[in-house]
Amino acid sequence: MKSYLKEKENYINELLKESLQEIKYPSVMREGMEYALLGGGKRIRPILLLMTLEMLGIDYTKGDGFAIAIEMIHSYSLVHDDLPAIDNDDYRRGQLTSHKKFGEANGILIGDSLLTYAFYILSHRRNGLDFETILKLVELTSKYAGVQGMIGGQVIDIESENKEIDLPTLQYIHTHKTGMLIRLPIEGASIIAKCSEDEKKALIEYADLIGLAFQIKDDILDVEGSFEEIGKAVGSDEKLHKSTYPSIFGLDKTKEMLEEKISEAISIIEKQFGKKASNLIHLARYIKDRNK
Amino acid sequence: MKSYLKEKENYINELLKESLQEIKYPSVMREGMEYALLGGGKRIRPILLLMTLEMLGIDYTKGDGFAIAIEMIHSYSLVHDDLPAIDNDDYRRGQLTSHKKFGEANGILIGDSLLTYAFYILSHRRNGLDFETILKLVELTSKYAGVQGMIGGQVIDIESENKEIDLPTLQYIHTHKTGMLIRLPIEGASIIAKCSEDEKKALIEYADLIGLAFQIKDDILDVEGSFEEIGKAVGSDEKLHKSTYPSIFGLDKTKEMLEEKISEAISIIEKQFGKKASNLIHLARYIKDRNK
Repeated sequence: MKSYLKEKENYINELLKESLQEIKYPSVMREGMEYALLGGGKRIRPILLLMTLEMLGIDYTKGDGFAIAIEMIHSYSLVHDDLPAIDNDDYRRGQLTSHKKFGEANGILIGDSLLTYAFYILSHRRNGLDFETILKLVELTSKYAGVQGMIGGQVIDIESENKEIDLPTLQYIHTHKTGMLIRLPIEGASIIAKCSEDEKKALIEYADLIGLAFQIKDDILDVEGSFEEIGKAVGSDEKLHKSTYPSIFGLDKTKEMLEEKISEAISIIEKQFGKKASNLIHLARYIKDRNK
Repeated sequence: MKSYLKEKENYINELLKESLQEIKYPSVMREGMEYALLGGGKRIRPILLLMTLEMLGIDYTKGDGFAIAIEMIHSYSLVHDDLPAIDNDDYRRGQLTSHKKFGEANGILIGDSLLTYAFYILSHRRNGLDFETILKLVELTSKYAGVQGMIGGQVIDIESENKEIDLPTLQYIHTHKTGMLIRLPIEGASIIAKCSEDEKKALIEYADLIGLAFQIKDDILDVEGSFEEIGKAVGSDEKLHKSTYPSIFGLDKTKEMLEEKISEAISIIEKQFGKKASNLIHLARYIKDRNK
């Protein structure tokens, strides 16, 4: 699985590099967009697109434009999250954040540029997909990335800092802030492959379960990672007084829930697609077992 | 002309009001998007779309989704421009700016939401247009609103504050920061109407000329408006040490240039479309003669 993911990650990185070639000016934006987009990341969202397309028997290069768009949107969301008015982070992945490197005004505009350019690439780089399919992807992307999706989750997350929140609110944050951009490539693949309703339903359920598992695992790593490194169970979530699965359920129960979500995801995808689902099954296990 | 514009403005305002109905949650975003989008404005960009469609013999309601999208993008750009890190404005149109009213984090996210929602409306609300046409509008919109268009102009504008800039740089700023969102509805209308290359060329030339004239007139108003009100020729551009047409050419020469651009715009559009162009001709004159 690791080498498969590495291979796909390299493929995506090449796509992303190439995607900004058309932009020559203003040079600070070209640089800033490259800095934000190419500075690392697991590329999990576009990889999910490629994997799902492969499973559905579709030449995955057809999803190139969509793959780039998804990662650009993910990348813009990190640039804006890091801004002083939101998370006020100086570093991401060991590098200065975009606004620290290029100034705050440019930080805002680099994010805006990536978001806007995502829709340019998606509509411009069709790779043989028909107009209707691309338009459905534009619609899905704008819905899941917007106020009814990712941004909605981000807003409630900010509102919830330093507050005790109930489980439905925590779930809203997770399903929207993280979940929607996990669902996007998988549901998008089902649109490209013109899946049946049953197939689509199974894919969306799988996506939502691994999206939630991904978030739960992040919460666990935030507690345990810190424990290993600094010898006590204080993570950044706790410092920010963020409600998390461990803070609501405790660590043991949270780990059980993670196991449950992953098992459920595997069973749903296996039931619908049988052996063809093996990569998606491995990916689900990988999400549970990852160390970072 | 004034009553025609008022009628179209009301039509656009109704569209905009209705366009946010689907958004229920988070309530601060619904409110914030309404505040930014419905708080006034001349609606000149969507009106240009309706006028051009009318001239081309197309039922203008076909452009509803596109009209909303254009105004949402204009509106998002104002919200982000007003942010502390960019223009740091507390008031716009006599009201608190979005970040002053809803906080800076929400200000950023209201802008992001409007930009993203523009693409949702554009792809979702097709009003009988075919998929290919809509997709071309998505492509055009994302190109003209992005780093190769409006954002590019904004970046160079920020870089140029407190600097003497040359005419090509000033022209780049104007054609990109303001011009592209003026060209967008007019060129977009030519796509919807499937115009000939000659028609399209005339429309784009007209758009670029009135876009430039609009900006030149703004520069003039910034000098003369202040003169009438406070008795001396100091406008906000001068205070910000912004290079403008009057600061480079002087006021008399600038007024001549305005006349020239408008005459040229009128002659181009009249030559191509004859009597059908009368509304666009009146609009060009209106841009020159407006007092605010």
